[in-house]
Amino acid sequence: MRPALWFKLGIREWPNYVPLAPILRDYQKEDFSHDLVAGLVVGMVTIPQAVAYAFLAGVPPEAGLYACLLPMVLYAIFGSSRQLVVGPVAVAALMVAGTVSEYAPKYTTEYLQITTIICLQTGLFLWILRLSRMGGLVNLLSHPVITGFVNAAAILIIISQLPAFTGVDVDSGGAPWLVLGGLLEQISTIDWLVAAYGAGALVLLLVIPRIARPVARLFGFSISANHALTRIGPMIVAVAAVALVTLSGAAGNIATVGDVPSGLPPIKPPPFELQLWLDLLPSSAIIGLVAYIESYSIGTTLAARKQTRVNSHQELIAIGAANIGAAFSSAYPVAGSFSRSSVNYFSGARTPVSSLVCAVVIVLVLLFFTALFANLPHAVLAAIVMVSVVGLMDLKSSREHWSIHRHDTITEHATLILVLFMGVEIGLIAGVLISIAFFVRTSSRPNITQVGRLGATEHFRSIKRYNVETLPHVLALRVDENIYFANAVQIEDKFLKRAQRRRGTRHLLVVCSSVNMIDATGVQMLRRLNTNLARAGITLNLSDVKGTLMPLLEAVHLREALSGDIYFTADRAMKHFAKELEPDSSAAQTTLTF
Amino acid sequence: MRPALWFKLGIREWPNYVPLAPILRDYQKEDFSHDLVAGLVVGMVTIPQAVAYAFLAGVPPEAGLYACLLPMVLYAIFGSSRQLVVGPVAVAALMVAGTVSEYAPKYTTEYLQITTIICLQTGLFLWILRLSRMGGLVNLLSHPVITGFVNAAAILIIISQLPAFTGVDVDSGGAPWLVLGGLLEQISTIDWLVAAYGAGALVLLLVIPRIARPVARLFGFSISANHALTRIGPMIVAVAAVALVTLSGAAGNIATVGDVPSGLPPIKPPPFELQLWLDLLPSSAIIGLVAYIESYSIGTTLAARKQTRVNSHQELIAIGAANIGAAFSSAYPVAGSFSRSSVNYFSGARTPVSSLVCAVVIVLVLLFFTALFANLPHAVLAAIVMVSVVGLMDLKSSREHWSIHRHDTITEHATLILVLFMGVEIGLIAGVLISIAFFVRTSSRPNITQVGRLGATEHFRSIKRYNVETLPHVLALRVDENIYFANAVQIEDKFLKRAQRRRGTRHLLVVCSSVNMIDATGVQMLRRLNTNLARAGITLNLSDVKGTLMPLLEAVHLREALSGDIYFTADRAMKHFAKELEPDSSAAQTTLTF
Repeated sequence: MRPALWFKLGIREWPNYVPLAPILRDYQKEDFSHDLVAGLVVGMVTIPQAVAYAFLAGVPPEAGLYACLLPMVLYAIFGSSRQLVVGPVAVAALMVAGTVSEYAPKYTTEYLQITTIICLQTGLFLWILRLSRMGGLVNLLSHPVITGFVNAAAILIIISQLPAFTGVDVDSGGAPWLVLGGLLEQISTIDWLVAAYGAGALVLLLVIPRIARPVARLFGFSISANHALTRIGPMIVAVAAVALVTLSGAAGNIATVGDVPSGLPPIKPPPFELQLWLDLLPSSAIIGLVAYIESYSIGTTLAARKQTRVNSHQELIAIGAANIGAAFSSAYPVAGSFSRSSVNYFSGARTPVSSLVCAVVIVLVLLFFTALFANLPHAVLAAIVMVSVVGLMDLKSSREHWSIHRHDTITEHATLILVLFMGVEIGLIAGVLISIAFFVRTSSRPNITQVGRLGATEHFRSIKRYNVETLPHVLALRVDENIYFANAVQIEDKFLKRAQRRRGTRHLLVVCSSVNMIDATGVQMLRRLNTNLARAGITLNLSDVKGTLMPLLEAVHLREALSGDIYFTADRAMKHFAKELEPDSSAAQTTLTF
Repeated sequence: MRPALWFKLGIREWPNYVPLAPILRDYQKEDFSHDLVAGLVVGMVTIPQAVAYAFLAGVPPEAGLYACLLPMVLYAIFGSSRQLVVGPVAVAALMVAGTVSEYAPKYTTEYLQITTIICLQTGLFLWILRLSRMGGLVNLLSHPVITGFVNAAAILIIISQLPAFTGVDVDSGGAPWLVLGGLLEQISTIDWLVAAYGAGALVLLLVIPRIARPVARLFGFSISANHALTRIGPMIVAVAAVALVTLSGAAGNIATVGDVPSGLPPIKPPPFELQLWLDLLPSSAIIGLVAYIESYSIGTTLAARKQTRVNSHQELIAIGAANIGAAFSSAYPVAGSFSRSSVNYFSGARTPVSSLVCAVVIVLVLLFFTALFANLPHAVLAAIVMVSVVGLMDLKSSREHWSIHRHDTITEHATLILVLFMGVEIGLIAGVLISIAFFVRTSSRPNITQVGRLGATEHFRSIKRYNVETLPHVLALRVDENIYFANAVQIEDKFLKRAQRRRGTRHLLVVCSSVNMIDATGVQMLRRLNTNLARAGITLNLSDVKGTLMPLLEAVHLREALSGDIYFTADRAMKHFAKELEPDSSAAQTTLTF
């Protein structure tokens, strides 16, 4: 490898790539007391979620806990956000279930092995994006596409949990309408004991956050709306359910988590099989993009509250590393968790050390307490998952947007519907294509405004909106868009039409203050327009050309080709044209010289 | 149908839809003498081309002649170009051959029937584009995509003609590399008599245009470089070849056109078979787009020379009608022919009546002279096709563009390669996607320039390019791009970085003179940016917001949300901010009042 490349990769600046190093160097005792509390609270929130999302993803429960170990630690080391908690999340779990269930039955070793391949591919994909500086790709997933996608994912997740929630025996890995249809068909086989656990858990999960503050006040505490106590509902519900199942001896009558092997995860690489790897690649890439966007947007939101910033490049490395860690520790794809990251933040975490504390909690659970999960009912896990994902949904923004950003709303709804009925991958890709199509469509119908001088100023504004001054023999048109292939013909057409309709026009002045780019099709159009206008005795002139655009116009020799000229500003152009109207300007000047 | 819709379709304004009507109303005797000459010359050029392109398309020779009858007359009636000649063209023939040869063997009745289905679908597709006002779609095929496509098509056409040109027996309908490979493998089976006819025709076709002027001068005429005599090489070559084959008695030894049935085309609808229609739809749509673009661009070029204009909407109707005419008269898809249209123009055609004259010539040939084609060798047709398409190729522009419009050059070459190796449809669609990807990529990396006041003017320009004046506590940044999903994060990032780096900044002023559009993602970014800047004690302000954009910003209540304000111009904003720097401005004012 050439030294230049090493340098580009920044190997010499390694501390930039390990944000934890400077944090630990300046670490204070006081910081630790904050991080310790936050880490313990996050641990309490994480444990039931990890098991529940593992259930959703179709992997064994211990894989959920493994996903909170190595990946969480790796993110703590490499991540540029101080409060982001990385680990199992609902949306990634849904995407894993959708992909892997085509290849192997759920909750088997084979299924988990395929899942680890996805982890590795996801991590490597994010690293490749970083190395090839293509991280900007993620911006193609616009806000409406993500909103539509997340809403659809939440609906899909809730539907997938209904069988476990009711005890009706339907394959929850099928298409959502098949699951719903199966449920309705066999509604009579509902297991009332299971449903009672599920409904009880659901009610508790919904009530606890609302009564946490009044209850705390009863005991003489005053806690904020974001206090950790409002978030540990899942832990309380899980413990209560396990206790109830164990004490009532219902263990044999309802589906529960069952034996969870104790001990730390085995460290081993995912299996390699070329065809399978190739087949999984597209899904892994999309899981990677979604994991990255989720993590980055949560990280940015939290960082803004502390007036710090998250480094988008470093996040590619960190989320990539966390997923590669997941691949080697029998876990499943990870991303930043919104609920746990905010618990972390509001519990006072100051540095990623809180994540390390949380990892220690998980280690202790794995070593000593896995037996406790045996009697945890699936119905309770389903309730935990359903309540978590409802919090992800955003149904407001589309209603707000309808009157203003119609294209965005259409994109959001189309993405939602396509994800629901065609699957996550097709839905997301179609969403991106729809956003781009709307953007191109908008820019292909540019606004072209006739402008005139505003009073005695040097400003030129629309003749429709302002009382401006124009010259009879000059048509000044401002193009409010880049001139490129998708709109060049429309612009040419409008220019010609306006110039031919307005009697007495001798000069067409194109005000380019809003033109940032002209492509080859645009340049060709300007040359053709120039020729066509010249035949009608009208000169073509440009003004207010951006400094960044001038070199291009010079390279194609446009100034020489124009029948008119390129002026620095519309003001100068109009002053130049105004001289033509002075009845005998040269004579007047001569007189003055005398 | 509601009267409103009738009105929209413009039935009441029917003369607008039949441009020939007003032309015939004002027709002069003198016009006819011009149109007659041009029509006869075009007829001479058309006959050999029609038969040769039919050979390329895989349809019987008479179908080529039929394509010059009804379609040509329909275009003459409905077309808005006065000189465009519509009929069989090489590129459409290639596309037909590529599509139909999957369904039926070439030169059979079944093949021709499928071809007429494509004609009908092509015509209806163009009409639907007109009715739904979606004609702008064709602009997505940018200049580089079309250049790459036409160059690739020319290469494909030349390769497809090599077997007939050399007499080597290879299936010319296969992939181009298979045809080339087969040729090389069986190079020893070359038929020297066939090759001699081919090579002789090729040499004559290349030489005639070059010697036409000197030869004419020998006879005492002085003709222009565009004179019709330089274009009738194909007719001379065809007549000479037929004479030679007939006189030498070689008819049995080489492949010739054979019997061509005499008489006018039967008028009947294409067959209907749902599955086949559905299968052909995508190909028909693409043939329609290409036919329309070819015709429209030739029409525009010729119209510009006469200072007239071609109506893009009317052209959709006219090219659509011509293809529907082809569908009902056993012809194949038609478009504007570049070579025949310029012959028409330079032979002095004044109105579409010249096309009607040409149609009469074709009728006479069909009625009385079809026997003459029997001995016309395929090798000569191949030579005519090859020489015609070389003229379509444009190899210059990409070399010229490389240094200036790199994206356009890459798009052109990618389209060329994809059309060659993946086929016309995939190649064209990929070309469009590549152009759009480059456009989005460019606009996702916007230029953000710090600006300052230029001297004592109200203009604000880049601090890097001009000697401008700035205020120490104001950072004025001009964004040279629309603010939308693909660049919102980058813009936010750059704003924050610049604001944090520049010490003493209390106000960030975003100069929006180049911003034509802000989408939901962009508005959300501005709100977030506002919050984040406010935490750092910096206000966010906008200026020079377009009149078209203000209603949007008002609808989302951005002004109220901003810590700063929205100013009419950067000038006003800066004057406002400058007041803060005056040590005791209110006191000074008080003194003045006294």
